[in-house]
Amino acid sequence: MQLDINANIMDINNTYADKNRSLLASKRILTLNIMGSPGAGKTTLLERLLAILQPKLQVAVIEGDLATARDADRIAALGADVIQINTDGACHLDAKMISLVLGGFDLEQLDLLIIENVGNLVCPAGFDLGEDLRLVVMSVAEGSDKPAKYPGAFLAADWLLLTKMDLLEYLDFDLEGALTDVKNIKPTIKIFPTFCSKKGVSGLDAVADALMELVCAKKEQ
Amino acid sequence: MQLDINANIMDINNTYADKNRSLLASKRILTLNIMGSPGAGKTTLLERLLAILQPKLQVAVIEGDLATARDADRIAALGADVIQINTDGACHLDAKMISLVLGGFDLEQLDLLIIENVGNLVCPAGFDLGEDLRLVVMSVAEGSDKPAKYPGAFLAADWLLLTKMDLLEYLDFDLEGALTDVKNIKPTIKIFPTFCSKKGVSGLDAVADALMELVCAKKEQ
Repeated sequence: MQLDINANIMDINNTYADKNRSLLASKRILTLNIMGSPGAGKTTLLERLLAILQPKLQVAVIEGDLATARDADRIAALGADVIQINTDGACHLDAKMISLVLGGFDLEQLDLLIIENVGNLVCPAGFDLGEDLRLVVMSVAEGSDKPAKYPGAFLAADWLLLTKMDLLEYLDFDLEGALTDVKNIKPTIKIFPTFCSKKGVSGLDAVADALMELVCAKKEQ
Repeated sequence: MQLDINANIMDINNTYADKNRSLLASKRILTLNIMGSPGAGKTTLLERLLAILQPKLQVAVIEGDLATARDADRIAALGADVIQINTDGACHLDAKMISLVLGGFDLEQLDLLIIENVGNLVCPAGFDLGEDLRLVVMSVAEGSDKPAKYPGAFLAADWLLLTKMDLLEYLDFDLEGALTDVKNIKPTIKIFPTFCSKKGVSGLDAVADALMELVCAKKEQ
């Protein structure tokens, strides 16, 4: 007998992901799964998006981290409804974890659920959480070779948010090469260049507008 | 019956790690395992260390990546003996992978073996490869909350190399807070602040000197 552990884990995950997707669809809630390396800028992005979207939408957040509630505290400080999942060492969120916490939100009132995955450009890409849309966040400080070296995350993503674009002038970053690699991996990916730094904020309104469109489309489904 | 899959995987890994460690010790080869997020600066660090150390030592490199031989090509361009391991999606190197490629080097001639792990601040920390020393590489562009949020990697490391220190002035990075968190997690960790950028190179000689000391001590064991 040969036990295919990976296939079994994936079957279980997909069952929970389908369950999550059905529940969230029945409540017409748009759900995002945000992936990226540690320090790509996922939580900062989330803070900025909440500042733009919260006056217009009911938004809830699930924060995935190995340890600490630092990210959840940052999000809660903005008045958002947030649940922290500490994975205690596990390198990604899975659909069962999401399923276990969904009951903690008032789903009847929600328009948008944002899930910030564990900071990891590898493992989260393999796990469907039941989301409608997957974002990969990549800081230009990570270097332009990252899409080619970590293709799974870019292949799994619908949108790429390039962050810390204001640092480009201090870095050896081949923007054209990186974008060519990304498009070769996932021709349909939508790319948003952004930054949020001491110098100001750029590109976040375009992301918020694109999300608003999808939330409205979800309501009309 | 309950099958503890994780324990079983770890037992197998530790068996191979012990085998690697015995073989490398019998040849008096110092072995490093370099971990860090994608884009922390592991390969750039390696290039700079090779430039300093190669005139004095016989150095070989194992490159771990999900895909591509880009890093191995960069190292081979410096004339170093390098073997690329493509993990085909797996999020870390394990001791068996190392064991399978060690025969590809002329171990009789080697002084120093450097293993660059897959870019991931989570999974590699759990896998002993048979190394003498573990380095974690963290770019200040990743943000000062990373040690607290990813404690496993810092706990597993003997040395912390802080990279891209020349970007500090453009970032909101709490250096004192980050170092306090690191010291709380691993009081004995040795910290090297560095950068290699358009602005020049800083801090790499100290790292090379510390490595030279360990290589010499290994020869005398």
